[in-house]
Amino acid sequence: MERTELNTLGEFGLIDRIKTKFSLQNPESVLGIGDDAAVIDTGDRYMLVSTDMLLEGVHFDLAYVPLRHLGYKSVAVNVSDIAAMNGIAKQITVSVGLSNRMSVEAVDEIYEGIKFACEDYQVDLIGGDTTSSRSGLVISVTVTGFVDKDKVAYRSGAKPNDILCVTGDLGAAYFGLQILEREKQVFLANPGMQPDLEEKSYLVGKQLKPEARTDIVHELAEAGVVPTSMIDISDGLASEIIHLSTQSGVGVLIFEEKLPIEDITMLTATEFKLSPVTAALNGGEDYQLLFTIKQSDFDKIKNVTDITPIGYMTESKAVELVLNSGSKVGITAQGWNHLQ
Amino acid sequence: MERTELNTLGEFGLIDRIKTKFSLQNPESVLGIGDDAAVIDTGDRYMLVSTDMLLEGVHFDLAYVPLRHLGYKSVAVNVSDIAAMNGIAKQITVSVGLSNRMSVEAVDEIYEGIKFACEDYQVDLIGGDTTSSRSGLVISVTVTGFVDKDKVAYRSGAKPNDILCVTGDLGAAYFGLQILEREKQVFLANPGMQPDLEEKSYLVGKQLKPEARTDIVHELAEAGVVPTSMIDISDGLASEIIHLSTQSGVGVLIFEEKLPIEDITMLTATEFKLSPVTAALNGGEDYQLLFTIKQSDFDKIKNVTDITPIGYMTESKAVELVLNSGSKVGITAQGWNHLQ
Repeated sequence: MERTELNTLGEFGLIDRIKTKFSLQNPESVLGIGDDAAVIDTGDRYMLVSTDMLLEGVHFDLAYVPLRHLGYKSVAVNVSDIAAMNGIAKQITVSVGLSNRMSVEAVDEIYEGIKFACEDYQVDLIGGDTTSSRSGLVISVTVTGFVDKDKVAYRSGAKPNDILCVTGDLGAAYFGLQILEREKQVFLANPGMQPDLEEKSYLVGKQLKPEARTDIVHELAEAGVVPTSMIDISDGLASEIIHLSTQSGVGVLIFEEKLPIEDITMLTATEFKLSPVTAALNGGEDYQLLFTIKQSDFDKIKNVTDITPIGYMTESKAVELVLNSGSKVGITAQGWNHLQ
Repeated sequence: MERTELNTLGEFGLIDRIKTKFSLQNPESVLGIGDDAAVIDTGDRYMLVSTDMLLEGVHFDLAYVPLRHLGYKSVAVNVSDIAAMNGIAKQITVSVGLSNRMSVEAVDEIYEGIKFACEDYQVDLIGGDTTSSRSGLVISVTVTGFVDKDKVAYRSGAKPNDILCVTGDLGAAYFGLQILEREKQVFLANPGMQPDLEEKSYLVGKQLKPEARTDIVHELAEAGVVPTSMIDISDGLASEIIHLSTQSGVGVLIFEEKLPIEDITMLTATEFKLSPVTAALNGGEDYQLLFTIKQSDFDKIKNVTDITPIGYMTESKAVELVLNSGSKVGITAQGWNHLQ
């Protein structure tokens, strides 16, 4: 039998391959694979469904990720997917695969984190599955939420001249991870050493305890603005800009000088001899929202803290970055690709 | 820090521990942990949500489980949970963790099986997650479905004198597994040997390709019968009878002579020197439905093939089996407990 290696496809290639094999049969199934969440018609409103699986050794390293943070993050990343449809998360299910070396107290820590997140985001834990695992820890979360039918934001709705906005700041989670990896190596070499992460707590916090931007969904609703398209940028700004461009059939022009990057991120980039712009574009793990709005809506949201316009959509199909030098470069996707 | 081993709790103990920490906050969340599926109020109807995670080396052995069957089963077991609420499954999400040694063709096989199941049960694959796995194959499926509000069947609704019914036959999947395990040992000892499973194909089929009883949900609806309680017996008839008893606050009396056990199951039990009744009670993996109906409803369903009355609910709290000898024994739970 023929054998094709998985890494020849990559994660996006594999998803595309799966997607082509399936079609929707039930009238309630409004949207399937291909956005931040699936959409089910429940009558008055749309229900949104999204799911994420976190595996030890792939998505997290228990050497430096506290179990409580892991529990919190597993909920937050799912809530973020619902926010990316302009919806509000309401329920989650959590399935865990637990190895024998995990104690009841360790499991309690995970669920403490899950509980904190449930309280912060007002979601209910309504079910799940618990099983033993022969290998590492597995956490699989599915989230359900609601959105009014006239408020749902897909990846495919952006139009030329729409303004492209991003929430929060970029690249911090990436450098948080670099710092944690470095401290792990220092610790392995010299177990007596206590890491001093105080100065970098902002970056480490962004990596360990990302927050879903449900606040932005509420802000947009209050301002009376429905984004023409929206996506969560946890896989990296660059790859998600390309998703919006491809799925909406428009081009994108963004500006280096507009990218929101914190001073501490800039400083740490210098320390690691890495480009802060590359981290902002491709670092990933920033659970922020990227969305487009009509130009006529800009005045309504321009005073909302934490929303930064970084460019606009164009008639062409090009996806480009205008550097501070004035030159223009093409943007290519280099999102996290856990299959490679 | 204190350390308590997980196996001191067991799976049900762990679920109870988690359950006590969480409560429901959103008005849409009608029912959380503790039944075959969670219940969400979507307006006109209830939406049902259930999830199951299958891990290599715990739930399946790729030495004898074909990937296509695994894909099929991962959907069927979830659809069964929706049927156990008297509902109809409509959508699934499938997340997979794939090790490097898995080829694209192998992944295709899994999704072929998923697709067959989607067609058989008329459910839509609407999303999921794909990731690499450092260890074995992980499949996590979440299913959503609908039920009319006046038709939902909980575990807690059984009343004294209700008739207890089970669908299909019992113990076959258990002996299917025994045969597969035996053939694996034969094969490991003598790789040239080809197993002859023809004669046992019924049993092996029940293990490898269980079917969810959505047909029964339709039959009950046609007959105009709403079960007073219902549960899926994949964890074993005995433990699920106890669940109905505990959650409904009633006792149960069942009769050995009424247990539906196929001749081939009887025969194979003799071959393995095991009790067919024990397999029927505790073997597990029978994706059948166990439900109670009012005595007055019995005439409406007595001619439905594949439904067998096996006993009735009582005023006492005792859960007992009347043996063919006439003596009565208490039933204890020995369901699959993957955490032990």
